[in-house]
Amino acid sequence: MTELQIEVPAVGSGGYTIRIGTGLLTSLLDRVSAAFAKARPFIVTDENLVDAGHLSRLCGERTIDHFVITPPGEVSKTMQTVTAILESMEAAFLGRDTVVVALGGGTVGDIAGFAAALFKRGVPVVQVPTTLLAQADSAVGGKTGVDSSLSKNAFGAFWHPAAVFIDVHTLETVKDRDYRAGLIESVKHAMIADADYFAYLESHLDAILRREHDVLAEVALKNCRIKGHVVEIDPTEQNMRRILNYGHTIGHAVETASEFELLHGEAIAIGLVGAGLIEVELGFGDAKRLDRVRALLKKIGVPVTLPRSMRPDRLIELIKRDKKAVDRWPRFVLIDDFGQIHKQGQEYALDVDKATIETVLARLYG
Amino acid sequence: MTELQIEVPAVGSGGYTIRIGTGLLTSLLDRVSAAFAKARPFIVTDENLVDAGHLSRLCGERTIDHFVITPPGEVSKTMQTVTAILESMEAAFLGRDTVVVALGGGTVGDIAGFAAALFKRGVPVVQVPTTLLAQADSAVGGKTGVDSSLSKNAFGAFWHPAAVFIDVHTLETVKDRDYRAGLIESVKHAMIADADYFAYLESHLDAILRREHDVLAEVALKNCRIKGHVVEIDPTEQNMRRILNYGHTIGHAVETASEFELLHGEAIAIGLVGAGLIEVELGFGDAKRLDRVRALLKKIGVPVTLPRSMRPDRLIELIKRDKKAVDRWPRFVLIDDFGQIHKQGQEYALDVDKATIETVLARLYG
Repeated sequence: MTELQIEVPAVGSGGYTIRIGTGLLTSLLDRVSAAFAKARPFIVTDENLVDAGHLSRLCGERTIDHFVITPPGEVSKTMQTVTAILESMEAAFLGRDTVVVALGGGTVGDIAGFAAALFKRGVPVVQVPTTLLAQADSAVGGKTGVDSSLSKNAFGAFWHPAAVFIDVHTLETVKDRDYRAGLIESVKHAMIADADYFAYLESHLDAILRREHDVLAEVALKNCRIKGHVVEIDPTEQNMRRILNYGHTIGHAVETASEFELLHGEAIAIGLVGAGLIEVELGFGDAKRLDRVRALLKKIGVPVTLPRSMRPDRLIELIKRDKKAVDRWPRFVLIDDFGQIHKQGQEYALDVDKATIETVLARLYG
Repeated sequence: MTELQIEVPAVGSGGYTIRIGTGLLTSLLDRVSAAFAKARPFIVTDENLVDAGHLSRLCGERTIDHFVITPPGEVSKTMQTVTAILESMEAAFLGRDTVVVALGGGTVGDIAGFAAALFKRGVPVVQVPTTLLAQADSAVGGKTGVDSSLSKNAFGAFWHPAAVFIDVHTLETVKDRDYRAGLIESVKHAMIADADYFAYLESHLDAILRREHDVLAEVALKNCRIKGHVVEIDPTEQNMRRILNYGHTIGHAVETASEFELLHGEAIAIGLVGAGLIEVELGFGDAKRLDRVRALLKKIGVPVTLPRSMRPDRLIELIKRDKKAVDRWPRFVLIDDFGQIHKQGQEYALDVDKATIETVLARLYG
């Protein structure tokens, strides 16, 4: 037998800028043209954004090739939608000199970023998140992907954006329920990274709910700093990035079990309370912390208990399918206090046995 | 407007070993288990390999989750097949601790490698190429992907194998036409990288066609050295790697225009003659070189002229859609002599105008 060793050099480091402001949409394509001199833009968006007038606001007088995801939302987050986008890019004669502009919420960003990663083995994507959830979370960090018929974000790629534009003006057209659910990733960020930020959310919640632009820009900045810091240290989720998964192991199972009756943020809200209950069970810190979390979530207006119709054995089954599971059981991210991850040696995720999770799920029915 | 800069660190360098020998298949899964201690293997293969007994040879007494691509060949190289593989991996309860084993020719390797790149945002793939084409080319280098309805390899990812096993014994069951077509990437390698290798192919062609194991192992080693060298220098096709595209710009168009009546190697054979005709047209080196190429290709038994039924305007249309095209026209890799790429400054690909290509296509009808 002959052996031959092939060396693969490191893929070069890079970076991108997040710009946060009001009314950025109208000048955005000019900025993209300036940054990618020879590139042709291709916009991916969804019906909600078209109806809210944001696609027109972005394009102005220009005619730009685009794809409108129909229907909007998680049901379209499939390989079939990605394939349709890719074929539509082919039909428009696009080449490697394409830059994808993802205009929309987290679903649009995940799908469009994934399509950009696959088209001609990868073209740049500019993320333009238009929801609180996307501005707080999904537009930064380079995770893209779609759901399988069995689990969320089962298929995807790491594909960092070439740039991110956050126009808080776009939040004005977000529906009330979506807006409230969108705040939950901000709560999660505060819980895992910054006790002062948690207090800020408590004290500024009314202004946030009134959608005051300056407070929204501040929230976006705080979120991007936290998310960006974690992503810089661990871009492909080897270890530290797992802390972003706080509340998501139970949360994702709840989201799938609800068959997307619950919004992502609503399911994660239940997941955050679930994480808190595990912490109480294991004696991590003060039980009053969970009271503050529940109070904030209730004031935001999201569920903090499991729907009675949701069977615990179904949730256990879905937790086994978690994409971070090894040997059919995932590990859980937990905190000792706001901003203090409970570490076990160098690990940010802990083994928690099935019996404990079953106990916690039973308590989550409220 | 507030700005925040996010730094993305370089993705770590790595490497993999190519092992070449006879009868490696039977011990391969033991080697994979040893290298990936906790991982669960998932085999992707096609009907041809099953019929030839190679899947049984690989699995032995074990029961391993697997996916059989049906029908075999380019027609299955679609997003739909990748989606079916991914869903089948989900249904088998596989997680991030999966290692995909790609047992088959170039199509299987491309599809399986692509599925591995996407499953849970990426799991390792072990390439086990079973055809000359795959052993010479596609198993090394990390290019994976599928075709669109309009062009070849339109969608994909760079995903380097974790290991490559070349068992020349598997070549015994390759059908004659496929075997002959499979030699063409070796001819291309010799043309772009090694004049002595071209002479070796001329002098050892009878032994190669008799499928003598020691000569086949030598051919595999020479091919992997050439391919591996280029890939090490340029893993994501920024510049030098383009030389591997020699003969492929016309070749891919011919392959698509034939609606896959022509095998990849057969189309590339025509593409190699096409590249030679461009070189003659531009006065690059000695015209006798093209005679040697034509003679070797004829002895191998592949076409060296375009089918009369293939319209030149259709080929021009497909060349415009080449995935390396910028502004709807690709550049061409050309040589001054065997092993000597014609460089223009630091560029390995040249601008050749449409009129020259039209002249060359007219001559390619023989």
